Amino acid sequence: MTESDIYLKRGVSSAKSEIHNAIRHLDPGIFPGAFCKVLPDTLTNDPDYCLLMHADGAGTKSAVAYLYWKETGDISVFRDIATDCLVMNLDDMACVGAVDHFLLSNTIGRNKFLIPGEVIDTIIEGFVQVINTLKPYGINIDFCGGETADVGDLVKTIIVDSTLTARIRKSDIINLDGIQDGDRIIGFSSFGKAKWEQKYNSGIGSNGLTAARHDCLHNDYAEKYPETFSNDIPLDLVYCGKGKIEDPLPGTPLNLGQAILSPTRTYAPLIRHLVSELKGQIHGMVHCTGGGQTKCLKFGNRIHYVKDNLFPVPALFRYVMETRKIGLKEMYPVFNMGHRLEIFISDEFTERILEIADEYDIEARPVGYCQKSDSKNNQLTISHLGEKYSYE
Amino acid sequence: MTESDIYLKRGVSSAKSEIHNAIRHLDPGIFPGAFCKVLPDTLTNDPDYCLLMHADGAGTKSAVAYLYWKETGDISVFRDIATDCLVMNLDDMACVGAVDHFLLSNTIGRNKFLIPGEVIDTIIEGFVQVINTLKPYGINIDFCGGETADVGDLVKTIIVDSTLTARIRKSDIINLDGIQDGDRIIGFSSFGKAKWEQKYNSGIGSNGLTAARHDCLHNDYAEKYPETFSNDIPLDLVYCGKGKIEDPLPGTPLNLGQAILSPTRTYAPLIRHLVSELKGQIHGMVHCTGGGQTKCLKFGNRIHYVKDNLFPVPALFRYVMETRKIGLKEMYPVFNMGHRLEIFISDEFTERILEIADEYDIEARPVGYCQKSDSKNNQLTISHLGEKYSYE
Repeated sequence: MTESDIYLKRGVSSAKSEIHNAIRHLDPGIFPGAFCKVLPDTLTNDPDYCLLMHADGAGTKSAVAYLYWKETGDISVFRDIATDCLVMNLDDMACVGAVDHFLLSNTIGRNKFLIPGEVIDTIIEGFVQVINTLKPYGINIDFCGGETADVGDLVKTIIVDSTLTARIRKSDIINLDGIQDGDRIIGFSSFGKAKWEQKYNSGIGSNGLTAARHDCLHNDYAEKYPETFSNDIPLDLVYCGKGKIEDPLPGTPLNLGQAILSPTRTYAPLIRHLVSELKGQIHGMVHCTGGGQTKCLKFGNRIHYVKDNLFPVPALFRYVMETRKIGLKEMYPVFNMGHRLEIFISDEFTERILEIADEYDIEARPVGYCQKSDSKNNQLTISHLGEKYSYE
Repeated sequence: MTESDIYLKRGVSSAKSEIHNAIRHLDPGIFPGAFCKVLPDTLTNDPDYCLLMHADGAGTKSAVAYLYWKETGDISVFRDIATDCLVMNLDDMACVGAVDHFLLSNTIGRNKFLIPGEVIDTIIEGFVQVINTLKPYGINIDFCGGETADVGDLVKTIIVDSTLTARIRKSDIINLDGIQDGDRIIGFSSFGKAKWEQKYNSGIGSNGLTAARHDCLHNDYAEKYPETFSNDIPLDLVYCGKGKIEDPLPGTPLNLGQAILSPTRTYAPLIRHLVSELKGQIHGMVHCTGGGQTKCLKFGNRIHYVKDNLFPVPALFRYVMETRKIGLKEMYPVFNMGHRLEIFISDEFTERILEIADEYDIEARPVGYCQKSDSKNNQLTISHLGEKYSYE
């Protein structure tokens, strides 16, 4: 059984073909090649500006937070769920060039029987904490409020989503159609400890959590917390790992629970610096979320992406691979595997970009390059540890 | 057991005190007395303008849509879920005076095992249908996209939320602080068939659905669709009514399922007309959602709201009352009971407002008036069928 098959049996599709089909008739916006949908500025009708409004959430990571909280009593993990939910939006929009002013709203659906008010408190605190962390870097987010609904008939524990709105100059839009033959791909590490982070980050982000959680965690949790997984998943795919959340994760200062719950790193301050210093030079930026290292395939025109110098696989992803005997070929389309942001730019800027990243304590490296694709589709070849993996 | 107790045992709190506590430290915006939070226009920094960003959802109504679809094969009910989810936002914002241009984004969380792509298709179609319906009335909504997540470990069936952004002139803001002693309260019917509606509307809206659903529907559905209710609700409170969804609802052209699923009526075209014709005269508008007829208590300063001429109780609410032997006292704080929009204005405009409502095939009536409250809080007295009910 491939990782993709397992994923589907757990009711998750990283390819999301059904969703893309559902929205196929909708207007693609004024920069169809950009990372997010971009609309004309109908709020002011200024022809020089455009608008973005973008939604995303913490996904099933909130089920891990719930489990960790119940096991340890540490409610603060829900602060990080707010980070996940906000950063998944923010960094998508930053990849289009929006790095200044945002409006934030959130929706929380909870099962009131299991989720008391303190959890909601903690999530709201988490949003405020991210807002305060980013302000000194020139990234302003207005918290417009949100909606918390008691929907225990729909939600087993808690679901947390957020939406951001931004307005930017059309001339500042980064459009991935600009990716060129010969471009360097620079990756920015998803793990470690960035300048604005309080603790070591495993790099997990908010994608692949259904897989990581069930593949890593011990079956004891299945009996103890049936509210944390779907009744429809075959039982042999539920919490089928060996790990307890308090087990140390070798190679990190984190335990396994903390590693799975590491809040999604925002790259927004770094991106803000890059776009202001290299305005007009950036051909594209990809936030490697759903689809992991293969996400780039959705962008650019007939580009063959060659990634031959990826980061060493971070500890948590190695742990998932070893526990479940999953190969790299299956891991790349689900997890970010070490960098969750990549930039496409002429090689002459590589050195300067590595210096800038270093200022923010984010490791960066040239992870690959772009060629013209020899088919009519984009292609991706990943070479790692002497093996080659191809995707289209 | 009071209706409020039943509500709590089902994991729903219409008072939402915990939620209000969680957000007590947040900035209340620049018009704290308005129906929604209003922010300065930080997107353009124009001092004459302000911004609203607002989130809401269809709540547990999507569980009824699921049940109806499974029983009848009629997937179109999910179009109406999009209406519910959008109108719950739109009409909140219209009550502040935003009636022109909106940006829309949505989040859908689904259990992929139970909810196929066609359901997502239908919901997206539903959003587009509302947008197209409102355009001829001068209400423009840009669909910015959204996020559909496969989160079967969190969501039993499907949850649908949306977020809207709008920008309006500060001078157009309707602030409920303006409600005055002597003001007339005019209510606009939630049931019937407004000019832009395709079918008769039961008036249910999107509030009280957990109660209505469990109180009306037959226990057979509990065994057949365990995925439509929380495992944590006492079993004697699950689907404890007598109704089958295909039973006709006396006094309406609808069956019981259709009545429960009637899409939340938008009043936006009517509100747009009212605010343009009566600019500056409107002292307040309340969207009677969570809290039903008691919602007004949250707004105004030391006002005693007297409602002594409410609409006759619509058929579906009567059905709930009769099935569960619930009194009016308990019904008013949960359901809208006949009007989901009320306007506070000097009595001299009553006649004209009734004429305007009539143009849109919406029944309107003076439902009551405002006095100075003799306590330091707002008060509400409802007189109906010779009985008086007081709330504070």
